[in-house]
Amino acid sequence: MQPLRLIPLGGLGEIGKNMMLFEHGDDGMIVDVGIMFPENDMLGIDYIIPDFQYAVDRIQEGLTIHGIVVTHGHEDHTGAIGHVLDAIPAPVYATSLTAGLLEVKMRQSGHADHPLHVFKAGDTLALGPYSVETFHVCHSIPDGVGLGINTPIGLVVHSSDFKFDHTPVDGWPPDFAKLAEFSQRGVLALLSDSTNADREGWTPSETVIDAAFDSVFQAAEGRIIVATFASLISRIQQVATATQRYGRKMAVAGFSMAEYIKVATRLGYLNLPKDLLISIDQAKQMAPHQVVIMATGTQGEPSAVLGRLAWGSHRQLEVEPGDTVIMSAHPIPGNEELVHRTINKLIQRGANVIYDPIAPVHVSGHARREELKLLLNLIRPKFFIPVHGELRHLRQHSLLAQQVGIPAEHIAVVENGTEITLTPDSLTVGERVPGGYVFVDGKGVGDVGPIVMRDREILGRDGFVTALVLIDKDTRELVEPPEIISRGFVYLREATDLIEMAQELIEDVVADHSKGNLTTAIQDALAKMFYNETKRRPMTFAFVREV
Amino acid sequence: MQPLRLIPLGGLGEIGKNMMLFEHGDDGMIVDVGIMFPENDMLGIDYIIPDFQYAVDRIQEGLTIHGIVVTHGHEDHTGAIGHVLDAIPAPVYATSLTAGLLEVKMRQSGHADHPLHVFKAGDTLALGPYSVETFHVCHSIPDGVGLGINTPIGLVVHSSDFKFDHTPVDGWPPDFAKLAEFSQRGVLALLSDSTNADREGWTPSETVIDAAFDSVFQAAEGRIIVATFASLISRIQQVATATQRYGRKMAVAGFSMAEYIKVATRLGYLNLPKDLLISIDQAKQMAPHQVVIMATGTQGEPSAVLGRLAWGSHRQLEVEPGDTVIMSAHPIPGNEELVHRTINKLIQRGANVIYDPIAPVHVSGHARREELKLLLNLIRPKFFIPVHGELRHLRQHSLLAQQVGIPAEHIAVVENGTEITLTPDSLTVGERVPGGYVFVDGKGVGDVGPIVMRDREILGRDGFVTALVLIDKDTRELVEPPEIISRGFVYLREATDLIEMAQELIEDVVADHSKGNLTTAIQDALAKMFYNETKRRPMTFAFVREV
Repeated sequence: MQPLRLIPLGGLGEIGKNMMLFEHGDDGMIVDVGIMFPENDMLGIDYIIPDFQYAVDRIQEGLTIHGIVVTHGHEDHTGAIGHVLDAIPAPVYATSLTAGLLEVKMRQSGHADHPLHVFKAGDTLALGPYSVETFHVCHSIPDGVGLGINTPIGLVVHSSDFKFDHTPVDGWPPDFAKLAEFSQRGVLALLSDSTNADREGWTPSETVIDAAFDSVFQAAEGRIIVATFASLISRIQQVATATQRYGRKMAVAGFSMAEYIKVATRLGYLNLPKDLLISIDQAKQMAPHQVVIMATGTQGEPSAVLGRLAWGSHRQLEVEPGDTVIMSAHPIPGNEELVHRTINKLIQRGANVIYDPIAPVHVSGHARREELKLLLNLIRPKFFIPVHGELRHLRQHSLLAQQVGIPAEHIAVVENGTEITLTPDSLTVGERVPGGYVFVDGKGVGDVGPIVMRDREILGRDGFVTALVLIDKDTRELVEPPEIISRGFVYLREATDLIEMAQELIEDVVADHSKGNLTTAIQDALAKMFYNETKRRPMTFAFVREV
Repeated sequence: MQPLRLIPLGGLGEIGKNMMLFEHGDDGMIVDVGIMFPENDMLGIDYIIPDFQYAVDRIQEGLTIHGIVVTHGHEDHTGAIGHVLDAIPAPVYATSLTAGLLEVKMRQSGHADHPLHVFKAGDTLALGPYSVETFHVCHSIPDGVGLGINTPIGLVVHSSDFKFDHTPVDGWPPDFAKLAEFSQRGVLALLSDSTNADREGWTPSETVIDAAFDSVFQAAEGRIIVATFASLISRIQQVATATQRYGRKMAVAGFSMAEYIKVATRLGYLNLPKDLLISIDQAKQMAPHQVVIMATGTQGEPSAVLGRLAWGSHRQLEVEPGDTVIMSAHPIPGNEELVHRTINKLIQRGANVIYDPIAPVHVSGHARREELKLLLNLIRPKFFIPVHGELRHLRQHSLLAQQVGIPAEHIAVVENGTEITLTPDSLTVGERVPGGYVFVDGKGVGDVGPIVMRDREILGRDGFVTALVLIDKDTRELVEPPEIISRGFVYLREATDLIEMAQELIEDVVADHSKGNLTTAIQDALAKMFYNETKRRPMTFAFVREV
């Protein structure tokens, strides 16, 4: 029997971008099509997409992708849909909220008419030889599913992002029965979410937030501004309930959140009391103690609503003494500085800012160690592949699995791009397929690589200098004093001495030059002088012409 | 009676850089001369020093600085000593370890002969009208002190950085008796460390780390590499003890740590068993299970030892499967990404990496909420000024103080540069003195301001383009196709189309140009075309000459 091959696509970096290719002979399917957000030192990059060239090549060789199953509506699972469909026009499968969010992206990327099949958690999808049993999971967006994938060689369970919340806001607990049933049938392999694999205990239920909101709402005498992720529908529901309970009205600031609320309300995932929603303009007419404002911008993004409020650049709203701001989110690693700066700015404007750890106004959507062990013990898989996490999380998840009795040689800790081969009796880690990060920068997809990134780093640190050197071809003397253009190096208005030194240096180099490349000689002399004078290393260029 | 004025110097940003000016009439003193490290978006900046121009101006007007007291040896309290002494040549006072570390900096900055007075915790310093009673505090470097400053209007207690560790590694607990005695005499104002004011409970004692080290050492079969801060002498002592207990030898990698160990050993703050220390070369000759390597680089700095080990660029050492790496430090906010990347890289090389929360191998050096309340209740000050923290920490500390009974109007939450006026009966918050961040970049101190920083941000994001446009002054036609130099914008080798488009565009602009500035016209046309084609906004320049 042919083996099953799993290839987590994406860059060769250590960070999971969620796109998994299943291959059995020439029959393939894909789970999720996520993007990754750039780290602080990836200057100018908008986002990063998985490197799926391998899949494209395999399709050329005869592989059929029977379907793309998207497990939930978060960007790190949906964001690359347009890029993927451009190259791999396979039918897409998603639950109703996820599909509603995918539709928008597909329309924007010119795939409005592409087949998008809506299913309900519990449905079974027939994707070529794969029979995919979907099951409900709890996460920080409604309508997420995990997958029980019946492959020709056995059952592979993919948890996707999940937590075991016994009291979720939407009243829809995890499908334990299905997991137990999988276990009875025998599970060949489990792929499970590793995001919180280094965090002890259980992730608290979403409902613990209710109590925290209640005490903040009770104490607040002025306006309440709640910032959270636009897609965190259950949190919006919780705020709406508290708003109603305290006789306030709710206004929504931020286009993306308003869009999510519209889609989620239309599809029945959000149930807002009648007359609760008001416009920002209406909110401004009301007494502060009657108003709650929902906003985006929990990651300190300067252009999002909360950022604009903090820096005083919002068109309609201003933060005032007496306002209470609830940060109902944690900083995503890398955003801490910006988030803290935003909080400080809001405090500076007189707001009382409530954030974790001051009060438990946010909980994670990902399972911690006790939950991960529970899933492993519920499923009792023969083989285990930790997914969704940095290498350090995958490794911790692997150690957990060993604690609950899975032998180390039955576990594959791999990075993106590494092929895993499964048979009914074996798990083998293969080679890495070629590929790397694919950066999206403006209209460019993949054109910005290591060289451009290194140049950006140098330019960002020390700037550049360019000199125009015109030489009289007869006299070999300078036609005019060299013109210098520089940015990001020194403050030019206060660096006239340095510019004059540069001009004199160029004159000397031109006068003394006898052999070799004059352009290089000028550039080298300038770079050396700049470093000696400033201990900085701007990129240095010269245009040299005889005229 | 004249009031006492306190001015926390430094930028007007929200982050504390530790330098406090005390003024009573024309009598002044300074506590600490710290630097701050740049945030991720402060491109190219080496470090930031306090803006002490206000103090310099006041000295011109007759203020005498009777002394600069440095409370402990950390960079955020010592790092600006050279810059400060250049402008304010007042005598410096420090305990012996702190003085040992200051000496190095003073020598490097040309102040080797400047008066540096060494005192012992418990000594009283006579600084003009100020009688400064020093007292021992526990912190993450030995020999730290707090100050009881007897001023002409009353006793002001400055905690500096501290925690209440009942079982410190050096066996020297906090001086509770002195604090109680201050309280009996009556304390006009308390200045206290706010770093952990949003963390519940008590910071664990340094000794909890011993148990964690013990279990890691017991389990490790190969080499052990312990990374920590170079100045964390007590941690080095703990590692030395564990090394000895498990019959291993210890090598030190990293110049700064070796220097700290030398100074601390000479001054008696570090007590290493005889024959424990070996060289890196000796370590390489020994069996892995006999070796412990102490290293710097816990913040993921690519040029420090741990960074080099992670990226495989260390001259002498390589991380191998079987190695255990202990990260005995927490990421400083803003460094999380780099630290996590370092951990992932070490795991990729086969190391078992132990870090908090996997095991409690680090504890903070700063007091948490219960300790802060204890200090407030021990001291019972009339007025309270939270120091050392971002605005959000200062505010939480203020709320804590109110919980223990200090009225809100007796508390001043201020940012750097804001004048505080104390009389025996009142505390008044005044104006901000002019000033801002002073960036140090290479040799430049304060020359890099907002304009250069903004240019670096743009260059780092989208790069630049410069065109050379030579026009025949008779025919008005281009002498040659425009030469384009660009970096950080697109990968030039693959962007030949774009370059040709730019050249043709320049030709068109030159041909069509009739009035106005041709350089501006070319620059604007290029910028517009680049944005349309790429959705990026490189800085765009042109050198235009008629020849």
